[in-house]
Amino acid sequence: MTGSDLPTVDTVILGATVLTSTTRPAPGYPDLPQEDKAARGTVTFLADHAIGIANGVISWVVPSASVPAAVLDAARERVDAVGMVAFPGLMNGHTHSPMTMFRGSAEDVSTHDWFSKYIWPMEVNLTDRDVYLGAKLAIGEMLLGGVTAFADHYFATEQIARAVEETGARALLASTFFSSEGAEGIGRSARFAEEWNGAAGGRITTAMGPHATYTVDDADLERTAAHAARLGIRTHIHAAESISQTESSLTKRGVTPVQVLHDTGILATGAIIAHGAGIVESDIEWLSPYADRVGVPVCSKVYMKHAHPTTPVRVLHDAGITVGIGTDGPASHNTLDMFESLRMMSLKQKDAALDATWLTSAHALDLATRQSAATFGLGDVLGAILPGYQADIVLLDPSGPHMQPMHDLAAALVLSARASDVRTVLVAGEVVVRDGKLTRFDVSEAIAELNARIPELTDRTKGTIQNYAP
Amino acid sequence: MTGSDLPTVDTVILGATVLTSTTRPAPGYPDLPQEDKAARGTVTFLADHAIGIANGVISWVVPSASVPAAVLDAARERVDAVGMVAFPGLMNGHTHSPMTMFRGSAEDVSTHDWFSKYIWPMEVNLTDRDVYLGAKLAIGEMLLGGVTAFADHYFATEQIARAVEETGARALLASTFFSSEGAEGIGRSARFAEEWNGAAGGRITTAMGPHATYTVDDADLERTAAHAARLGIRTHIHAAESISQTESSLTKRGVTPVQVLHDTGILATGAIIAHGAGIVESDIEWLSPYADRVGVPVCSKVYMKHAHPTTPVRVLHDAGITVGIGTDGPASHNTLDMFESLRMMSLKQKDAALDATWLTSAHALDLATRQSAATFGLGDVLGAILPGYQADIVLLDPSGPHMQPMHDLAAALVLSARASDVRTVLVAGEVVVRDGKLTRFDVSEAIAELNARIPELTDRTKGTIQNYAP
Repeated sequence: MTGSDLPTVDTVILGATVLTSTTRPAPGYPDLPQEDKAARGTVTFLADHAIGIANGVISWVVPSASVPAAVLDAARERVDAVGMVAFPGLMNGHTHSPMTMFRGSAEDVSTHDWFSKYIWPMEVNLTDRDVYLGAKLAIGEMLLGGVTAFADHYFATEQIARAVEETGARALLASTFFSSEGAEGIGRSARFAEEWNGAAGGRITTAMGPHATYTVDDADLERTAAHAARLGIRTHIHAAESISQTESSLTKRGVTPVQVLHDTGILATGAIIAHGAGIVESDIEWLSPYADRVGVPVCSKVYMKHAHPTTPVRVLHDAGITVGIGTDGPASHNTLDMFESLRMMSLKQKDAALDATWLTSAHALDLATRQSAATFGLGDVLGAILPGYQADIVLLDPSGPHMQPMHDLAAALVLSARASDVRTVLVAGEVVVRDGKLTRFDVSEAIAELNARIPELTDRTKGTIQNYAP
Repeated sequence: MTGSDLPTVDTVILGATVLTSTTRPAPGYPDLPQEDKAARGTVTFLADHAIGIANGVISWVVPSASVPAAVLDAARERVDAVGMVAFPGLMNGHTHSPMTMFRGSAEDVSTHDWFSKYIWPMEVNLTDRDVYLGAKLAIGEMLLGGVTAFADHYFATEQIARAVEETGARALLASTFFSSEGAEGIGRSARFAEEWNGAAGGRITTAMGPHATYTVDDADLERTAAHAARLGIRTHIHAAESISQTESSLTKRGVTPVQVLHDTGILATGAIIAHGAGIVESDIEWLSPYADRVGVPVCSKVYMKHAHPTTPVRVLHDAGITVGIGTDGPASHNTLDMFESLRMMSLKQKDAALDATWLTSAHALDLATRQSAATFGLGDVLGAILPGYQADIVLLDPSGPHMQPMHDLAAALVLSARASDVRTVLVAGEVVVRDGKLTRFDVSEAIAELNARIPELTDRTKGTIQNYAP
């Protein structure tokens, strides 16, 4: 495409350094000479480029100087991005967004106490409005930090969907259920998934939402897989969250949580396996046949905070399994900051492998973009700034003193950048953050109401949702 | 002190939630019931308080409503801090500030390659101006992020001192030397320490700067201790940076690096032991007698990035040894962000101990304030907002969506806050950052010049400073 035949578009982003796409590194690459950059994954940055967007979809990515004046004049929206870095919107692969309301309410406690003494007794107090406000606050935090999409797993999911519709974000929503609820739980999850898939102009997609392999029984998991097959969607589930869960499953029933997902048909219909810190080498046998439809979002900060070993990303990588990045809920992660999640993942993986050459910044950016999109099941429309992809784009200002001078832009994005460096965010071509401010809504009302709700929300005397006994 | 006899002051900070001081938790506290908060260390926050400052020193901390109008009127500077959190300026316990110039220049490589293939061959290219500009950029980044003081260890230290004088920051400066330089190295370090101690109106203090126990021999360490005793200063030195260094020292000479510090008299005259990730249980015998004058600044992000086990903070804590927090140089840490350093330390310590109840946010804040000040040897004048302490104060805005709603302010400061939430910073009573902007200088010239210097700075063909062979 040359300047003269460049189609007119409704939006042009002009003058950015564009991260167009990443390539996944070859398995086993840390054993190769360090100079073999291609084998370590690559990130393609294009200096001073323009991005044309029509009807929410990227139309072209070309040198800024090659955009004819007529095309610029025809655009309804022109975003000056000189000096900015443009990259695909970050995708939070696993969260419970409304749990902003519990941020900081269960600190310095064991996983058992976190669930059984704090979170599940507090969640008895939830109202629909709490969930709506919690989600809205979460979306505000995420959009301001360059997170354009999130995979959510929670209660009162219609309230989250309403917040997504209103705020302009993108989400993959799953309605959480437990087998202890009987048929009502799974029925609610399936009805939600059917009714809301494709809503908000396609910005909402859905998944089935069984809570976990230790709270949903095999019969319900088989029913879940049948619903997922019928609806053509994936299942988002907590499984092998820690090695102690895997050990407990082996002791109690002789199979790992991942084998349970395999045997009940969950993997075959496509799965988002939240955490996977308890995945063991033998699980690769179950995962490999479904490598094209399974993803594991990793929430590294939470595993450190809750003091258990992290996800074996290297084992998954070498087996060709897709790995995404997430925050988990803000009651455990304390933020919804995907720069933080990306950085913690990068550092914790080197730390766990005792290998500083493993998981380069280029590789980390592949996880944050293409592999995250694939985890959502949306790898052909999200995760790259290429023609035909959805225009979910972040513009970040790299001029702050904490990023300068600039030797290595990939390293700077992974190890130096902050959420507060994000200036402009587009979702499906719409500018939802401009000059560091939300364009569609503000979060002050949600913050004020949720602060006033703290005494009631933190009352732990009203019963509980579950007891933690994986 | 009541309102009527409150002394007039030159500066009043009005309406803040004030972190006045922390208390160190009792040894062994994680074994106590979780409800025993006092044993886990405490943070004292005072709502809606005013801080009076005269001649750079805190005069009083009282409820805002009790400040008479006459005292307000008499103040030259009145800082509106309604809605802000005030806490003691963060102190970077170990860095090489001018290495901003190498930020991102040696990525995804082993510790050996980082030193021998990248950093030491590149440092051959340094000019005095590079060091001055690198330090100035670093100070800009640190002040904007609430870091009021830093302990630096580098070459051309006069250039760093000049940058400290001009920018209004506080620093503890040590001139790095190797035994390979002969008498000239240690002589230069001692001359610098003597000439500059107390400079910049007391904002500069000094330390002796032997590089490490593996690059400075025992005779020079003994001479270093003699200089330190003569000058009444501490020694800042890399020692036991990793467990492999400790093992190497045991193999080569039968003693740990910490015992070397003991046997050469370095501990007796007071030491800042950079990193200490290789400290072993038996080292406590050498450290304990000098617990009143030894501190270990921990730079957790760097150990993860360079893929070696972290500092045994729990062992040090239980022995009563002071632990501070640092960033190390930005060529390894990629930022000079002490919120990041604090957070990584907190998370990595839980991770290493496999104990989520260990190192609470209250404890982490004690490391970031009182223990950091003690590491500098300035625990009686810095690290708390109390009468008689130096007015090094940070005002942070906690209203951002990533910190709300507010259940737990200590957890929010450690696990949610960002450097970009800092609004106002005072050093020795002077406002050096106001509304998120530097008041005395800007860093744009340093950034532009250092970016232009990258081709020459990264030329690795001119020789080397040292070879890494600990």
